[in-house]
Amino acid sequence: MKVGVLTGGGDCPGLNAVIRSVVRKGVQEYGFDFVGLRDGWLGAIQDETVPLGIPEVRGILPRGGTILGSSRTNPLKHTDGVRRVKETLAAHHMDALIVIGGEDTLGAAAELSRQGIDLVGVPKTIDNDVPGTDYTFGFDTAVGIATEAIDRLHTTAESHMRTLVVEVMGRHSGWIALHAGVAGGANVILVPERPFDIDQVCDWVRSRFKINYAPIVVAAEGAVPKQGGMVLQDRTLDEYGHVHLSGIGEWLAQEIARRTGTDARTTVLGHVQRGGTPSAFDRWLATRFGLHAVEAVKDGAFGVMTALRGTDIIRVPLADSGGTTKVVDPSLYDEFEVFFG
Amino acid sequence: MKVGVLTGGGDCPGLNAVIRSVVRKGVQEYGFDFVGLRDGWLGAIQDETVPLGIPEVRGILPRGGTILGSSRTNPLKHTDGVRRVKETLAAHHMDALIVIGGEDTLGAAAELSRQGIDLVGVPKTIDNDVPGTDYTFGFDTAVGIATEAIDRLHTTAESHMRTLVVEVMGRHSGWIALHAGVAGGANVILVPERPFDIDQVCDWVRSRFKINYAPIVVAAEGAVPKQGGMVLQDRTLDEYGHVHLSGIGEWLAQEIARRTGTDARTTVLGHVQRGGTPSAFDRWLATRFGLHAVEAVKDGAFGVMTALRGTDIIRVPLADSGGTTKVVDPSLYDEFEVFFG
Amino acid sequence: MKVGVLTGGGDCPGLNAVIRSVVRKGVQEYGFDFVGLRDGWLGAIQDETVPLGIPEVRGILPRGGTILGSSRTNPLKHTDGVRRVKETLAAHHMDALIVIGGEDTLGAAAELSRQGIDLVGVPKTIDNDVPGTDYTFGFDTAVGIATEAIDRLHTTAESHMRTLVVEVMGRHSGWIALHAGVAGGANVILVPERPFDIDQVCDWVRSRFKINYAPIVVAAEGAVPKQGGMVLQDRTLDEYGHVHLSGIGEWLAQEIARRTGTDARTTVLGHVQRGGTPSAFDRWLATRFGLHAVEAVKDGAFGVMTALRGTDIIRVPLADSGGTTKVVDPSLYDEFEVFFG
Amino acid sequence: MKVGVLTGGGDCPGLNAVIRSVVRKGVQEYGFDFVGLRDGWLGAIQDETVPLGIPEVRGILPRGGTILGSSRTNPLKHTDGVRRVKETLAAHHMDALIVIGGEDTLGAAAELSRQGIDLVGVPKTIDNDVPGTDYTFGFDTAVGIATEAIDRLHTTAESHMRTLVVEVMGRHSGWIALHAGVAGGANVILVPERPFDIDQVCDWVRSRFKINYAPIVVAAEGAVPKQGGMVLQDRTLDEYGHVHLSGIGEWLAQEIARRTGTDARTTVLGHVQRGGTPSAFDRWLATRFGLHAVEAVKDGAFGVMTALRGTDIIRVPLADSGGTTKVVDPSLYDEFEVFFG
Repeated sequence: MKVGVLTGGGDCPGLNAVIRSVVRKGVQEYGFDFVGLRDGWLGAIQDETVPLGIPEVRGILPRGGTILGSSRTNPLKHTDGVRRVKETLAAHHMDALIVIGGEDTLGAAAELSRQGIDLVGVPKTIDNDVPGTDYTFGFDTAVGIATEAIDRLHTTAESHMRTLVVEVMGRHSGWIALHAGVAGGANVILVPERPFDIDQVCDWVRSRFKINYAPIVVAAEGAVPKQGGMVLQDRTLDEYGHVHLSGIGEWLAQEIARRTGTDARTTVLGHVQRGGTPSAFDRWLATRFGLHAVEAVKDGAFGVMTALRGTDIIRVPLADSGGTTKVVDPSLYDEFEVFFG
Repeated sequence: MKVGVLTGGGDCPGLNAVIRSVVRKGVQEYGFDFVGLRDGWLGAIQDETVPLGIPEVRGILPRGGTILGSSRTNPLKHTDGVRRVKETLAAHHMDALIVIGGEDTLGAAAELSRQGIDLVGVPKTIDNDVPGTDYTFGFDTAVGIATEAIDRLHTTAESHMRTLVVEVMGRHSGWIALHAGVAGGANVILVPERPFDIDQVCDWVRSRFKINYAPIVVAAEGAVPKQGGMVLQDRTLDEYGHVHLSGIGEWLAQEIARRTGTDARTTVLGHVQRGGTPSAFDRWLATRFGLHAVEAVKDGAFGVMTALRGTDIIRVPLADSGGTTKVVDPSLYDEFEVFFG
Repeated sequence: MKVGVLTGGGDCPGLNAVIRSVVRKGVQEYGFDFVGLRDGWLGAIQDETVPLGIPEVRGILPRGGTILGSSRTNPLKHTDGVRRVKETLAAHHMDALIVIGGEDTLGAAAELSRQGIDLVGVPKTIDNDVPGTDYTFGFDTAVGIATEAIDRLHTTAESHMRTLVVEVMGRHSGWIALHAGVAGGANVILVPERPFDIDQVCDWVRSRFKINYAPIVVAAEGAVPKQGGMVLQDRTLDEYGHVHLSGIGEWLAQEIARRTGTDARTTVLGHVQRGGTPSAFDRWLATRFGLHAVEAVKDGAFGVMTALRGTDIIRVPLADSGGTTKVVDPSLYDEFEVFFG
Repeated sequence: MKVGVLTGGGDCPGLNAVIRSVVRKGVQEYGFDFVGLRDGWLGAIQDETVPLGIPEVRGILPRGGTILGSSRTNPLKHTDGVRRVKETLAAHHMDALIVIGGEDTLGAAAELSRQGIDLVGVPKTIDNDVPGTDYTFGFDTAVGIATEAIDRLHTTAESHMRTLVVEVMGRHSGWIALHAGVAGGANVILVPERPFDIDQVCDWVRSRFKINYAPIVVAAEGAVPKQGGMVLQDRTLDEYGHVHLSGIGEWLAQEIARRTGTDARTTVLGHVQRGGTPSAFDRWLATRFGLHAVEAVKDGAFGVMTALRGTDIIRVPLADSGGTTKVVDPSLYDEFEVFFG
């Protein structure tokens, strides 16, 4: 049996760990052959492949990024995309695909599965927003990096008695902000799922200063104010086109400074959250996802993705997950309000 | 309402995070008063207490260890232990206890609950061997430290083409060995649950050398050989009384060197696995355990412990968990044999 | 003898280590008394002090920031500043001051020394730009954090084949950029001391892509283009007043993207470079600076600062260092051009 | 010009960084060809070489260990060793050698240089005990790892109020113990250069307990008691042949426990101190050593090694350094006694 492997969407710590375990188990236990498709769906459309055997996966477990490259190409938005994917699979005699990606990549996978391509999905995203799985790999690494940054910012905030706003990744979901904010002992945590009241934020800031501590505000990049503040945010988005530069973190620091008359600064964590070696948890999860994905291929269980449920890896239909976003449950967010202010 | 808090057993990253969230929520939301019992059950027996309010828990979230101190004292093995615990609670007008500990501490808690003390348990152990919960806090930190050590040992093993044996914690269960071994890309993983065949281990070592890589062997301190090798291990145990000094790691290195004629060395990770700042995952879990434990007290739900089930925190009867050990499922171990050798 | 201690300027990992070693040696060996001045020169002007004995310095060695607080207040720019500092010293019967700070703080110290205040300086700055000492503490920590970030960015750059620009601290000197850029294997390093040619930068970027690797560009926040690009930078500076937001990093990414037709992104490391626990090197250096500073006080050697020369701690006249900037030597920068492109 | 490169002795973080910068500068600036000799002097004796060009050094900067392999083979102790090294050089038309190693490797290099082989040395050792240079690369990484371990052990020591003995590398010199002990806030630091009085050690331990803190004792593996305790150490050395198992750390814990009647445990850091990615400082130093070594070859400046003097890289005669050990100066050690107890 010959199996193609591709990684799509933003890079994510643990992608290589999945590729490695897929290939190790597929080759050693099932005698499969593998071929890598370059740069996600792009390689499937343009017939760009790379060899993928035991030698190629040696030593890649601890390495961030993906040896196959990645892109945000969506075959469904590409003229003749689906046909060309099928042609590439046929040209290389691939019997099945293992598709490692986030909601976009898996959404396309779900549709291609419906159109007759035998494939198994593996969910990845540092944002943890794929439904159907308790966690995605990459998330724990991102939360760890953000938490370490917050730890560092506490001492600089205290030394100067100023507010530090930390903008973390998460345009549509606040998982990183919530986990890192709780783990880092933040005094305010703002997530996209819960538009915030800037007056309330300033009250929390003031109450923190009152007990002679400096506030740390953690904001997901997709956090939004309830009121007109949004207008400013949109404008700066248009002007520069980079949400991470003129986004919510800077807006918050300016508003907090203006409204409370205290000093406030912003740090935008940016790409460091998605690079580098995966955490032990993510390597474990990614390795298990790979093992179970290739087992699903062997079982002919197509149209599914691997998922974590408790401590088990299960298979869930791709149709249930692709293209949708798992958001933070309000009751979970509310658990932590006792730490605000 | 007045609530006593104690931490028992070996120290563990995240204990302070539990204490902090218990106190923050208890004081701020429920108006509870708290008192700390020093050094686990010892303080409960000897009536040694410390003040425990908001000021005491400031800044302790990222700190390893426990501000309350700990001990392995078991009130059930103490003359008049239970009576004296009850007297201490009465003397301070404590209405309930929150008991944070591993299988021993929680086993005692289960019995004291049967004898009429209102208490809620919180499971902790770096070994992850408490039944009823997916994970205990402290475990992720220990796995992370062990994985980082294995990462480091790969390069030194390769440079000298020698076997490196890494002995990690785990006398009765192989969770740390298995998780860190998988995450660190070990070539052999040995756990107490699965007595090993030293010939098989040497075969894996040889096959690794054959492809010009140096083997990493990860062994839980409680790993045992199937055959007479055990004799040597017992003897050294008797002589020094320190399993981590003359234990399985050193025995393995000597046997591998002797049987394969190649160089082999041992590193015993020891106490560094249990100290220091907790990982983001452990801070998150410990914080949630604390919040749910104090909520259980408020609800009068005694005789239970908090537990992680998927992404939810639930309550399980203490009687189901205390005093028993959650071991590695054979089928889980078998998942990873493809990476051996 | 009674000695005042103050920390001025931006916070810096290692400040607490200096304070601790000053107090430990001063109290235990010389029988000195200490008093802390709050928030740098501000506390000296406004007579705000804190107790400073052995108990206050317990456990602070590994902690970032400063337990004394800091500010950028300059007594020389303050009406009656010098007189008020003298009054505070007299009111508390302080015989001498230990002043821990960067070029501004030490510049003021040099002048106050000339005006008759007995003081000893200790140079600190993450920027490493104080003349007269091989290194300042804080710098090694900042370089370590920046290098770790660059390590992480390599994998994300490779996975998407895009340029990543990393903006690090350094308005007037490029020490952090140069050290972290070299240690992180950057393909372009830009420092304030050497205005850059954007065409040359784009050539290096292109040559990196040509061999199928993704470029990492490390730029000090004070790096400047040789040509008119400066105009844009100035404008954005005026508009927002935050150099780290609309600064050189973003400008570089936009220019590289526009001129080479490839994708480019920016990460601004910001405040995480100055917070958190000091590196082992910085704790060593800060501890020794503290020991030698208090010894200088005991010797009556005022008007000097401690300095690192090779592996020795020496005393250099404050007048030689305060108020000037140690910049990167062109020949040192040139050593590393072989790695560009 | 064709240049051979070899790495000898124990592996050390930064070896690959030297190799990379030697090759990058040698090929790109001077047009040199390079060939790698496998496993130190062994490859030179047995004529085992590996290709060494720009492709081989891509991506190795952050990787621990050495891509050339290493061994402790000494050509001077090998029949016909010197002649065979010369034959290998001749067979491959090597004009010069770059020899990266510690005192043994450089000692042999000094002799071979006297016997007419054109070579340049680069000092490496995590022990920092090569004379003539302020620091060797690898040392800062080892100190950083040891310091992090000590940080972790503080919290576990405090939680159980027990002494923790940390045995670090350093058979003949106490550099790692002293630097990591000072940086980690140890209460006792023991180095080979200063035989210790166990009664004094126990006094320090007791005085630490008296103020309700738990003592951390850092001991170099070569630390020795003044009295008969040495006898036990020798015996266990003979029996097992592994100094790190039955060495000074364990002896100290036993003696402290026995004499003070308090609990004491040992952690032997072992091989984790020498593996893994080099610190930023070590990458910087190793990179500069490589650049200067290949420049020395170009200049025909043979029989020297690169050395750090302040912030400069200089050349010192190999004859001055090879085969001797740089030990800790007593006055430096005495600086820190104020922190003991």
